[in-house]
Amino acid sequence: MTSATSMFNPVEADLQILADNLIQLIGNDHPILYAAAEHLFGAGGKRIRPAIVLLVSRATMLEKDITPRHRRLAEITEMIHTASLVHDDVVDESEVRRGVPTVHSLFGNRIAIQAGDFLFAQASWYLANLDNLEVVKLLSQVIMDLATGEIQQGLNHFDTNTSIETYLNKTYYKAATLFANSSKAAGLLSEVPSAMAEHLYGYGRHFGLAFQIVDDILDFTSSTDTLGKPAGSDLKSGNLTAPVLFALEEKPYLEKLIERQFAQEGDLEQALALIQDSQGIQRSRELAAHHAKVAVEHLATIPPSDSHQALINIADYVLSRLY
Amino acid sequence: MTSATSMFNPVEADLQILADNLIQLIGNDHPILYAAAEHLFGAGGKRIRPAIVLLVSRATMLEKDITPRHRRLAEITEMIHTASLVHDDVVDESEVRRGVPTVHSLFGNRIAIQAGDFLFAQASWYLANLDNLEVVKLLSQVIMDLATGEIQQGLNHFDTNTSIETYLNKTYYKAATLFANSSKAAGLLSEVPSAMAEHLYGYGRHFGLAFQIVDDILDFTSSTDTLGKPAGSDLKSGNLTAPVLFALEEKPYLEKLIERQFAQEGDLEQALALIQDSQGIQRSRELAAHHAKVAVEHLATIPPSDSHQALINIADYVLSRLY
Repeated sequence: MTSATSMFNPVEADLQILADNLIQLIGNDHPILYAAAEHLFGAGGKRIRPAIVLLVSRATMLEKDITPRHRRLAEITEMIHTASLVHDDVVDESEVRRGVPTVHSLFGNRIAIQAGDFLFAQASWYLANLDNLEVVKLLSQVIMDLATGEIQQGLNHFDTNTSIETYLNKTYYKAATLFANSSKAAGLLSEVPSAMAEHLYGYGRHFGLAFQIVDDILDFTSSTDTLGKPAGSDLKSGNLTAPVLFALEEKPYLEKLIERQFAQEGDLEQALALIQDSQGIQRSRELAAHHAKVAVEHLATIPPSDSHQALINIADYVLSRLY
Repeated sequence: MTSATSMFNPVEADLQILADNLIQLIGNDHPILYAAAEHLFGAGGKRIRPAIVLLVSRATMLEKDITPRHRRLAEITEMIHTASLVHDDVVDESEVRRGVPTVHSLFGNRIAIQAGDFLFAQASWYLANLDNLEVVKLLSQVIMDLATGEIQQGLNHFDTNTSIETYLNKTYYKAATLFANSSKAAGLLSEVPSAMAEHLYGYGRHFGLAFQIVDDILDFTSSTDTLGKPAGSDLKSGNLTAPVLFALEEKPYLEKLIERQFAQEGDLEQALALIQDSQGIQRSRELAAHHAKVAVEHLATIPPSDSHQALINIADYVLSRLY
């Protein structure tokens, strides 16, 4: 099994530049926002989104070096992702993420809302100044999809009639759209032919789905320590993910527990046990593996390189997190 | 004195189309967001921002009709403004605005944050799809300025060393940038020469400053009923506007009251009395009148038309609100 770090090898130096830039880009004028930015961008983050943008950039530029615009796109991608996390954490009242206190729990709602708005605003501004209308459209679609996904997730809370299709649709909006559109955008900055740009979109889309499904499985199979947040917290908050939706097909009593929103003592524990006892986790693994495989197939037309290989390895690595 | 309605006469029909569109544009899929949109766009709003965009559009298209892109720009302008209001109200914990309960007080923080994010996201998307990179840059600058202004305002709370320059600078970010950049953008969509585009920016900039200074004066001179929010609420929350900053030059005791953040019984009332007794309001009126005058001067190069005249009348009307 490859570690995340060695996998990012072709863009390791790029990611270091990115980390430094991100902290600098966020207002030097505002001490608390700066603290929030350091908190957000300083440590811990896996930076998988900018890593993929940078790898796609290198895989499509080949012998040529990547441009400052490729780097800026990677930074914008991480800013958009971070902005949406900060607001989601306020909305969902989450106290920890990746084992670290959230911005609103550290600095209050005021700073969290402003930091998120400021990151979105900066991202829009840098985006416009990439001077590529097609790229602006792709990333503004991402911003729209993220907002739509968060709203959809709220609407389907505790809804046991949610289909796998609805779940995948919401997962595209909440997670895959950013990988899909930023991969395509990186290709456009490298001026790849449009068929290849579509394959890059396909890689990002299916990679993003696999990535999120794996994340949703880990919420049931990992310890609170490993997750950096309480295990089972998606289920508890009514966010019904793949393992639950598959388990519901086998375990009718699970429906009852969810519909009464775990109101009685022991309901949540019983629900978690029913899911463990079902094929839900296994079927979710298969679903994730399917999307990882489709992702890699989309890379077939891209010429071989270290970065190309790293994009394949990352898809494998995402699945390996389950074992 | 012209009423706001007759002043908007050249674009009255356009504003009706805009009002209908705005409610439709905000997710038909989400019942609560739809309710929030109806609440935000349904009634009461003066729609002065889109009115100015539409008037600039008509004043620069003359005998030709305005295009769907001019209309879309007006809608985007109102969306950006509304999104920033919704988030500002959460951050500032305001319960009423224009006599109407705020979104977060009606629907909760969750919906208010999501509604604001969704409006920003929609605005960015529609903006990108105007297919004009220059316009995208101008409006993304506005989004950035609004976020910056809200943060700056927070930083200067209760700071009696705030200069009029700092106040005008923050006022540009919080209020004038939208008028300035959207007026220029409307001109660009009409393909005006670049010198005229700069004059349109100048009109919007100085109009926006006059508009906000007047608003800041009204906080001291109007009744709670007229304002639709408690009178003196800027001062109470530590937002030091022109009347206060001028009054501070004459009334040293005001500084003390502000610096202890009106901690003692009767402090706020005493501060308000000191301001009334000073030249603060009169000097603020003169400052507003100066900017309204400069705004109108920027219109000199634009050919005469009903819409041109309306733009002049609106600048006069803004001042007339003070009497």
